[in-house]
Amino acid sequence: MAFGWIDEQAELRRRAGLVRTLRPRPSNSPLLDLASNDYLGLARHPEVTDGAARAARDWGGGATGSRLVTGTTELHTELERELADFCGVEAALVFSSGYAANLAAVTALAPHGTLIVSDAGNHASLIDGCRLARGTTQVVAHADPDAVRKALGTHDGAAVTVSDTVFSVDGDAAPLADLAASCREHGAGLLVDDAHGFGVLGTGGRGAAEGAGLAGADDVVVTLTLSKSLGSQGGAVLGPARVIDHLVNAARTFIFDTGLAPAAAGAALAALRLLRREPERAARARAVAGELHARLTAAGLEAVRPDAAVVSVRAPSPEDAVRWAADCRAAGLAVGCFRPPSVPDGISRLRLTARADLSEGQIERAVRVIGETRP
Amino acid sequence: MAFGWIDEQAELRRRAGLVRTLRPRPSNSPLLDLASNDYLGLARHPEVTDGAARAARDWGGGATGSRLVTGTTELHTELERELADFCGVEAALVFSSGYAANLAAVTALAPHGTLIVSDAGNHASLIDGCRLARGTTQVVAHADPDAVRKALGTHDGAAVTVSDTVFSVDGDAAPLADLAASCREHGAGLLVDDAHGFGVLGTGGRGAAEGAGLAGADDVVVTLTLSKSLGSQGGAVLGPARVIDHLVNAARTFIFDTGLAPAAAGAALAALRLLRREPERAARARAVAGELHARLTAAGLEAVRPDAAVVSVRAPSPEDAVRWAADCRAAGLAVGCFRPPSVPDGISRLRLTARADLSEGQIERAVRVIGETRP
Repeated sequence: MAFGWIDEQAELRRRAGLVRTLRPRPSNSPLLDLASNDYLGLARHPEVTDGAARAARDWGGGATGSRLVTGTTELHTELERELADFCGVEAALVFSSGYAANLAAVTALAPHGTLIVSDAGNHASLIDGCRLARGTTQVVAHADPDAVRKALGTHDGAAVTVSDTVFSVDGDAAPLADLAASCREHGAGLLVDDAHGFGVLGTGGRGAAEGAGLAGADDVVVTLTLSKSLGSQGGAVLGPARVIDHLVNAARTFIFDTGLAPAAAGAALAALRLLRREPERAARARAVAGELHARLTAAGLEAVRPDAAVVSVRAPSPEDAVRWAADCRAAGLAVGCFRPPSVPDGISRLRLTARADLSEGQIERAVRVIGETRP
Repeated sequence: MAFGWIDEQAELRRRAGLVRTLRPRPSNSPLLDLASNDYLGLARHPEVTDGAARAARDWGGGATGSRLVTGTTELHTELERELADFCGVEAALVFSSGYAANLAAVTALAPHGTLIVSDAGNHASLIDGCRLARGTTQVVAHADPDAVRKALGTHDGAAVTVSDTVFSVDGDAAPLADLAASCREHGAGLLVDDAHGFGVLGTGGRGAAEGAGLAGADDVVVTLTLSKSLGSQGGAVLGPARVIDHLVNAARTFIFDTGLAPAAAGAALAALRLLRREPERAARARAVAGELHARLTAAGLEAVRPDAAVVSVRAPSPEDAVRWAADCRAAGLAVGCFRPPSVPDGISRLRLTARADLSEGQIERAVRVIGETRP
């Protein structure tokens, strides 16, 4: 029977305790949210939702076509200009998702003959970008500039190093300045995914590259999402104008995708302006993460020191992680639960996200619930 | 220098006359639009834009996380239920784009050892899905069930045939019933991308698979976009519940992507309900396409007989196509211009889309302008 093997795989997942199910949430969930990536607490900010609503009414429910046909509105251009300006780069290009932005950047910047040096902890979208690209990928040890240097030394032609700035699972940061130095020694480009750094790291949330002194560098390309700190949907690639022009001409997930919906562009633009006006939100997200980590560690839990707004807490097993997260939920707290195959090292975790708008009382309550439900 | 090769490629493109540039459109463009994929004219329908605005206000600017963490709202579930119900299938799963839906469906349904039989005219997202999948791809002649039969006969294990239902460039339809029969002879699955069929073909726009008597078949999986007939953004996979459950557990562009923005889900849901209430919109889109084709042909132009709402007109060369489209634009008409590398056969075309809401006067004007500006 067609697709017959699916039932066998489902049975294997069931036996391994790895079945995933969707859990629809109501509009006004009573749960305290430490699971979303809404780092700055902007997804439901009235200026952001008004930005979405106004854009839908002014521009329509969708972009109606590829960005190269009818899908580029003046709203898209405005968002791209303000993103580029905020991050101190020449140009930006907006995509329907961060996943699409990463596929675009990696494939367009690594044609045949290019060496791609890819961090072992990179996000799935970067990995898929490497697999789609015509270049050859060499995976190197996690957050290891010397390994990057060594890999680049084995290759004579064009090369690009690809890395998350903040790794989604453990919340640790890449050594960006060192990575850039390694790349420069070899004339290689550096492509970093700032999905979890933008809005949190750098001056007023300008992102990890800005924080590492790399803003506007002609050999650095940054991707980011509009769906985390900006509380919307979509992704973007930022860099030198010539790189952005190249993507417009060569990136398949740009050329053959419908443009980002106006409502998403409008929400992201409103959030960006809010962040500009209230830069303290970025520092507050980092401070909340630091406080969560300090309190969890004081309670005897094994948590990774956060470099941005993600706090990762180790669980003994996938089953324990699932039960722990369920117990948190029963006690009114939503936390992320990462387990195979979503973790690179097979170690299951609770994943907590620090939101800039969490109060002291909410932080205290979250830590208490996590401690009381620990396996 | 890092990315130095980009300038050489840009120069090659310039010399070949293949430079692409973005053309931002204003909110109230004076152009008559025969370029967008807004087949039913719903992108700016007040019920659709209200649906987007209301969803943003009720649910926020973004979904805030992966569908498996915080990114599934009751709105997503409602949209998925109504899509499945409308199309007569067990279940549906919504993605942030049709591109992501196609990557998900192909990769998750073609693991290692699977033969993928792929039509030579398939959309870029299906091709990228084939490249990402662990299965082995065999590309077969365009719209040729016998070629599919032959390819399937060379393989013993699991197999899946992948095809657009309506090919984006020429607007011709795949021989779906024959393809399904070829697959069934070999116990292979059939995966079809109904991006350009949904909303236009089938009973009241239920899509090409329904039109071919394949709705609800346990060996057929359909992908579609929310960004064309439904005037929003996003994609969906529709099929047997076990297939959809499998995607939730295995599809990387589902698991590692932020969920579709509430505004996009709300717009798509409003458009779907409109289509249900006004099924004549589907027939009208087809009738407009037929009329466009008849008039263009009568004017001596070489146009492909449309099977859905896309009408393709041949141009002598890429340069002619670009100039022709520019002349149309100068005369107040927006048309698509497809040329290498966006066309599989190297032939440049104008691509016209029939919208259900085009008036007789608009059709007449469009044909007149295209005729008067012909190379």
